[in-house]
Amino acid sequence: MALLAPITWPTPPPGYGPWEQVAYDIADGMRRRGADVTLFATGDSHFGGRVASVVPVGVGEDPTLNGDVYGALHIGRLFERAHEFDLIHNSFDWKPLTYALATKAPPMLTTIHGFSSPPILAAYYAGAARSFFCSISDADRDPGLGYLATTYNGVDPAAFTFVDRPGDYLLFLARFHPEKGAHLAIEIAKRAGVRLKIAGIPQDANYYDERIAPHVDGDRVQMLGEVRGRQRDELLGGALALVHMTTRPERFGLTLIEAMACGTPVLGAAMGSVPEIVVDGVTGFVCADVDAAVARVPQLASLSRSACREHVASTFSVERMIDRYTDAYRTALELRTPPPPTADQQRWREHDWWDRPMAFTDDPPRANAQPYRLTVSESPER
Amino acid sequence: MALLAPITWPTPPPGYGPWEQVAYDIADGMRRRGADVTLFATGDSHFGGRVASVVPVGVGEDPTLNGDVYGALHIGRLFERAHEFDLIHNSFDWKPLTYALATKAPPMLTTIHGFSSPPILAAYYAGAARSFFCSISDADRDPGLGYLATTYNGVDPAAFTFVDRPGDYLLFLARFHPEKGAHLAIEIAKRAGVRLKIAGIPQDANYYDERIAPHVDGDRVQMLGEVRGRQRDELLGGALALVHMTTRPERFGLTLIEAMACGTPVLGAAMGSVPEIVVDGVTGFVCADVDAAVARVPQLASLSRSACREHVASTFSVERMIDRYTDAYRTALELRTPPPPTADQQRWREHDWWDRPMAFTDDPPRANAQPYRLTVSESPER
Repeated sequence: MALLAPITWPTPPPGYGPWEQVAYDIADGMRRRGADVTLFATGDSHFGGRVASVVPVGVGEDPTLNGDVYGALHIGRLFERAHEFDLIHNSFDWKPLTYALATKAPPMLTTIHGFSSPPILAAYYAGAARSFFCSISDADRDPGLGYLATTYNGVDPAAFTFVDRPGDYLLFLARFHPEKGAHLAIEIAKRAGVRLKIAGIPQDANYYDERIAPHVDGDRVQMLGEVRGRQRDELLGGALALVHMTTRPERFGLTLIEAMACGTPVLGAAMGSVPEIVVDGVTGFVCADVDAAVARVPQLASLSRSACREHVASTFSVERMIDRYTDAYRTALELRTPPPPTADQQRWREHDWWDRPMAFTDDPPRANAQPYRLTVSESPER
Repeated sequence: MALLAPITWPTPPPGYGPWEQVAYDIADGMRRRGADVTLFATGDSHFGGRVASVVPVGVGEDPTLNGDVYGALHIGRLFERAHEFDLIHNSFDWKPLTYALATKAPPMLTTIHGFSSPPILAAYYAGAARSFFCSISDADRDPGLGYLATTYNGVDPAAFTFVDRPGDYLLFLARFHPEKGAHLAIEIAKRAGVRLKIAGIPQDANYYDERIAPHVDGDRVQMLGEVRGRQRDELLGGALALVHMTTRPERFGLTLIEAMACGTPVLGAAMGSVPEIVVDGVTGFVCADVDAAVARVPQLASLSRSACREHVASTFSVERMIDRYTDAYRTALELRTPPPPTADQQRWREHDWWDRPMAFTDDPPRANAQPYRLTVSESPER
């Protein structure tokens, strides 16, 4: 099989790079289980099997590399060799689907890591005849697409230190952006009378300066900046709970399973993937709003931290992720071709894309938006 | 044949859109000469033959359309149908080359409208085995590529009004950006004691404010802003000369032939395409520097304005452009496959891309630039 990884960072990434990490874990897991895997990734990637590359280093590592050009070549070179593979797993996002239109390719499976904005649906709808799809949570599905499976991301529990007796603080660990809800974490911690540590990059600097920074006093609210490696592991393990009260549906939420792997339960918003990842009342609490979250803080001590870790080992480990992909690959190889859309899916495809029960990252301007239908039209001779 | 047009604007464009205009002129010219042309363009394009479209309007017309997504679908849908055509003419730039890697396509010809930055060469080098190339001037060629022909752009002389007795002004008509040399036009006009009219969009606002605006007095230097249609035609025709003293090699220079079509000679810099377009001493003067241009101003009246227009009719008309493309298509159909690179071309491909005798639009940061070789590498099993 061919596995198409992103090329922003090497696979696996030395630092940030969640998609590259997942691609590596899949490639390595399949290789360990005996599959003949060719990993399409940057030239400085490290993999026990074959690596095919057109770009020497990650386009995020050298600013003089043109990510558009190298991305297109990276994809084009895989499809040039499509006939060599029994299966293509696309973990690069939507763009390879447009190449699949033009290629006699073996069965292809695409992991949809999320929809960044409604217009991106055009590519998925066009590619739906050529690729099977996997979602990374049941919640993050577009009603216009058919899915082969939900293939949750996984982590290696051994990479996280289990902590049975945590410290005295709640933890917020995410980008500082309104959708990640740091301001709600602060409100919850203050009302519950518990200390809060916050960590992450200030992606939305205005938001951070106006709504977060005024609360940071080094005691009740401590700001740690971006944390990595051992510091991150200790921070996760020492928390009473990870507070993840997002204001927008989470697609998956890798940090949630990393926290649980350390034994740390999650206080999470009742939307998006959270109810699928957190076992309410066992590995954390799924909270409808801030009031509910505040009320749950005193009950955190009653949760079993071993149960949190056990939940990750049984459900969200890399090995379970590989099990899920193995099943999906098998189905794709049996079916060969994706089924046509159902009538309901077809209706959604023709529905206004901006009016969707799903989580987009970007807020595209609604003005001028027209519900274009995705049809290839050909005018008659005029 | 299939002709792949850009999709920023309709083909032909109602306003700005030089690439769409050229694509239209080629499609329409070939159709008039009996070719069976399918034009891949926006859905609101107007063409006497067949239009195939995936995007209803130009991505430049509706800001909610995602140009990346629709561009990829536009290209993918053409290559999906590649087997239906005897020939593909790619007038969309580099991206379709990466799709050609993955497709059994008929002979393909790509017009290179210019290299925006060195890394874009990676796509052209990769695509060189799948596509023939045409340049838009002899000057705008990369030494690492082989070219089938130079296919100069053309205009319809009938669309421009010939003016035998011009006004008393020199004209600058281009974007306000240092590379277009408005500041040099001002210096030339002032030193020659002739009035100057300037028109165009202030693309580089700092440059305009600091180096141009202080000279605009409404008399010796008049600023007209962006001009279109009839105003533009009259402005071109009324000029003693178009001053085009660029500081960077021009790739083609559509305005030069538009001016000459009106009978207006060109004072142009001796670099890039100018010496190919302007017949020195007949349809203008090719000037080594500002001093030379100043010295030529009194001689402008001695030039035959009819000769300027005649030069466009004989060499830079749409019909001559179609002749050139017809020849190029014929050669591509005979050869079927582009020849491999010569040893010299191959050396250039492996040479540091930043150190090139050619005209790039963008100035990419030189720091960190590494002369990566474009080779697909595959690691052995480790």
